[in-house]
Amino acid sequence: MKLVAREIDLGSRSPTVLLNTADATELGVHQLDRVQIEHDGRLSIGIVEFTEELVDPGTLGVTRRLGHLVGSVDVIPAPQPTAVHYIKKKLDDVELEKHELQRIVLDIKQDRLSDVELGAYVTATYTNGLSLAETMHLAECMADVGDAIQWDDAVVADKHSIGGVAGNRVTPIVVSIVAAAGLKIPKTSSRAVTSPAGTADTMEVLCDVAFSLEEIKQIVTETNGCLVWGGSVNLSPVDDKIIRAETPLSIDPPGQIIASVLSKKKSAGSTHIVVDIPYGEGAKVESLAAARELAQDFKRVGDHLGMTIECTITRGSQPIGRGVGPILEARDVLDTLAGDGPEELRLKSLRLADILLESCGCESEAAEILDSGRALAKFREIVAAQGGNPDVTADDLVPGRHELLVAADRDGVVTHVDNRLVSDVARRAGAPKDKGAGITLHCRVGDEIHTDDPLFTVHAESKDKLADAERLVGQSETVRVRSRDEALVERV
Amino acid sequence: MKLVAREIDLGSRSPTVLLNTADATELGVHQLDRVQIEHDGRLSIGIVEFTEELVDPGTLGVTRRLGHLVGSVDVIPAPQPTAVHYIKKKLDDVELEKHELQRIVLDIKQDRLSDVELGAYVTATYTNGLSLAETMHLAECMADVGDAIQWDDAVVADKHSIGGVAGNRVTPIVVSIVAAAGLKIPKTSSRAVTSPAGTADTMEVLCDVAFSLEEIKQIVTETNGCLVWGGSVNLSPVDDKIIRAETPLSIDPPGQIIASVLSKKKSAGSTHIVVDIPYGEGAKVESLAAARELAQDFKRVGDHLGMTIECTITRGSQPIGRGVGPILEARDVLDTLAGDGPEELRLKSLRLADILLESCGCESEAAEILDSGRALAKFREIVAAQGGNPDVTADDLVPGRHELLVAADRDGVVTHVDNRLVSDVARRAGAPKDKGAGITLHCRVGDEIHTDDPLFTVHAESKDKLADAERLVGQSETVRVRSRDEALVERV
Repeated sequence: MKLVAREIDLGSRSPTVLLNTADATELGVHQLDRVQIEHDGRLSIGIVEFTEELVDPGTLGVTRRLGHLVGSVDVIPAPQPTAVHYIKKKLDDVELEKHELQRIVLDIKQDRLSDVELGAYVTATYTNGLSLAETMHLAECMADVGDAIQWDDAVVADKHSIGGVAGNRVTPIVVSIVAAAGLKIPKTSSRAVTSPAGTADTMEVLCDVAFSLEEIKQIVTETNGCLVWGGSVNLSPVDDKIIRAETPLSIDPPGQIIASVLSKKKSAGSTHIVVDIPYGEGAKVESLAAARELAQDFKRVGDHLGMTIECTITRGSQPIGRGVGPILEARDVLDTLAGDGPEELRLKSLRLADILLESCGCESEAAEILDSGRALAKFREIVAAQGGNPDVTADDLVPGRHELLVAADRDGVVTHVDNRLVSDVARRAGAPKDKGAGITLHCRVGDEIHTDDPLFTVHAESKDKLADAERLVGQSETVRVRSRDEALVERV
Repeated sequence: MKLVAREIDLGSRSPTVLLNTADATELGVHQLDRVQIEHDGRLSIGIVEFTEELVDPGTLGVTRRLGHLVGSVDVIPAPQPTAVHYIKKKLDDVELEKHELQRIVLDIKQDRLSDVELGAYVTATYTNGLSLAETMHLAECMADVGDAIQWDDAVVADKHSIGGVAGNRVTPIVVSIVAAAGLKIPKTSSRAVTSPAGTADTMEVLCDVAFSLEEIKQIVTETNGCLVWGGSVNLSPVDDKIIRAETPLSIDPPGQIIASVLSKKKSAGSTHIVVDIPYGEGAKVESLAAARELAQDFKRVGDHLGMTIECTITRGSQPIGRGVGPILEARDVLDTLAGDGPEELRLKSLRLADILLESCGCESEAAEILDSGRALAKFREIVAAQGGNPDVTADDLVPGRHELLVAADRDGVVTHVDNRLVSDVARRAGAPKDKGAGITLHCRVGDEIHTDDPLFTVHAESKDKLADAERLVGQSETVRVRSRDEALVERV
């Protein structure tokens, strides 16, 4: 069918084309069918949407992506992309071959699938699961379509956490220890989306975090380590697109987690990785058994990709560390490196660092490296290489000046510190945008508490945001204190 | 967060809003999350997409649907709609309650779900299936959100076919017989999308087919019947939206078919319905067992909705009738009503009409009504009521003047007439847009054939389209002729 193409601002990443319903009927295409568009001897594929108003009969509306199609075009129905057949196959619970997953990954990367099809893909991998073989293939394919860093070293260390625990800023400490031990560790981290701080947000308090692959390579060559934001490089471009479709449905199938994490590590050129899997009430993985299974699968898929994976299963039912929020966490990190941080943050960092060092064939001397000040010196080196002030101290980092001290209203024992609520209150207070906003925790589960003892302090940079946070504190129970017998037995 | 809203032409039915990535990070929302937008004291909900280019920080791009939002707005994160929780529940294979399906249906109707969520819904109903109870609730909810027709009559007849068989234009004949027997039968039909003619396309050769509910009521009150296009009324508005998401994935779960069909019949006020389920190679239902199961479920769901359902399971592996295409099928209908049509079309129509008449408590006198000319008279009455010429005869309807006769290239037996290929060739020839385009079949499966015997004729209104159709005929085997032994045993 001869049509006249014109660009229409659809804000869509996929190659959507708008057909007037009358033209669509004549062409014999359904909504979301593909059409082949010929223009100046070149062929493009479009995904059809109908409209009665936005374009008239005879006109083809094209998104910016197809913006080169201007003027006379010839449109005919095209077959569904093969990726859709493979998604259908997965829907029918048939195990996918590597080349089939490759096709799906490639089509997702190039935004060739409609959202309905993408929704079907993530749903199918959730309801029918991904086999170990599928997970291996998927990780490989996802790495293949991303950029990669090459290292001359035989051993390149790395670290990842499944996340979901407030505070828990072990990464800068682990990276500093491992880099100080002489190993390369090119660590990329995320920014917070629904949490009050990602490692990238925390590091941004001290230095730049957005670098190109070239720059990352140079920083690591200079210092052995880096602590940068993964979002400015393109190690696994398909990952974000899959997560976009999974998030609204709150699905996060284990096979997809493994493929996402390991594809990025593979592209980063890492060979030995410690993966931290926090588990427990409110964490991403709720049971020990599920955590162990996930750990085994991580190791197997890593094996397949030629990487050595060590997993740590850690208690994730309450925050780790004292501070929650970019500046407060950066202070904890600096304090710990200086030998004066919260005990659990120090212990967890040392344990993870030792496991990673051992895995890489080094001695497990994390405590020595930390206590001797070598880790702190290495951290300052990395901060400097990333354009920050290497002489910064915890005292230079000032939390928001508006404060709210929340105290216990009874005697008893702390039975729960809610990760989710700690995060929500810190976000209401302004984190991660307001770097000084967040929470300082004054207690941990098991602590004996008397009426009026401080439980936590909320910090904010603005009075309004502190009031917002205070409202949420009033409506919920961030820190649960119960009498000794209530702590043991809850009557329902 | 205070933003300035401006309309941006997104061509999206759902309430999409575009946020600059920087603003989205500050708000703490993912793509496809919901935000609540306050404007002049009124609250709206938007589905978030990110952009780096289309809107600047500080601006909220809104689709036409939210076009009333202009100027200063206040945006905060909003929870996912409850429908998404229920979709997640179905993904986890938990049976949904009626109020949960109701929420999903309502949100689909109002385009409140993103395409990813809609894709997850249809995928979940496909992989996990819909229970009988869910199907009943779904049919009821889908009917409830549509417009409805009220009749004073205790018995209102209706007819539906699952489709997928070329030709098969029994509907106008059944409706004419049943209406002539004194029963009301308000029949709405579809137009072709991938087939060469729907009943609505065929009737449009003779009269108008697009009417409002009021007009339909008047036509049926006058004549007892109607043969109109369902697309111009709003009997089950959710149906089209679900089909839009199912089609690209080629999924069509039985529970969803039943809910779609019966919700429309319920809204049309029908009480007694005959549902034709063609089965066999190339039909929508491939096995007799599956057809029987579908029939039982249709009857049970009908029962629940207070409707009496009779199902017919018919052989659907080859076309029914002689003509395929709007004019050619209209000729078959007029010929059959005049006592001179293709034998199988006559037999199938009579059988369906008798079953429907019996079900409604009338005598099964379809043959008598047809042979006496009363059905033809009734058909003419309906054509007149729908603004057509009641005196039309088959000879007035002229097929496309460009013809291609396809003859047998060997002696043998017809072993297969391919529904799909018959449809494709007829469409290439111009059907349904070119009313005179299509195919006349000269043989049926089992017919003994000699070399050069005519198999079928392709009709087209333009030479170019005939050439298109001829190419497809040359590349494929629309009618399969085999020697007697080949017909019995195919060597692979």
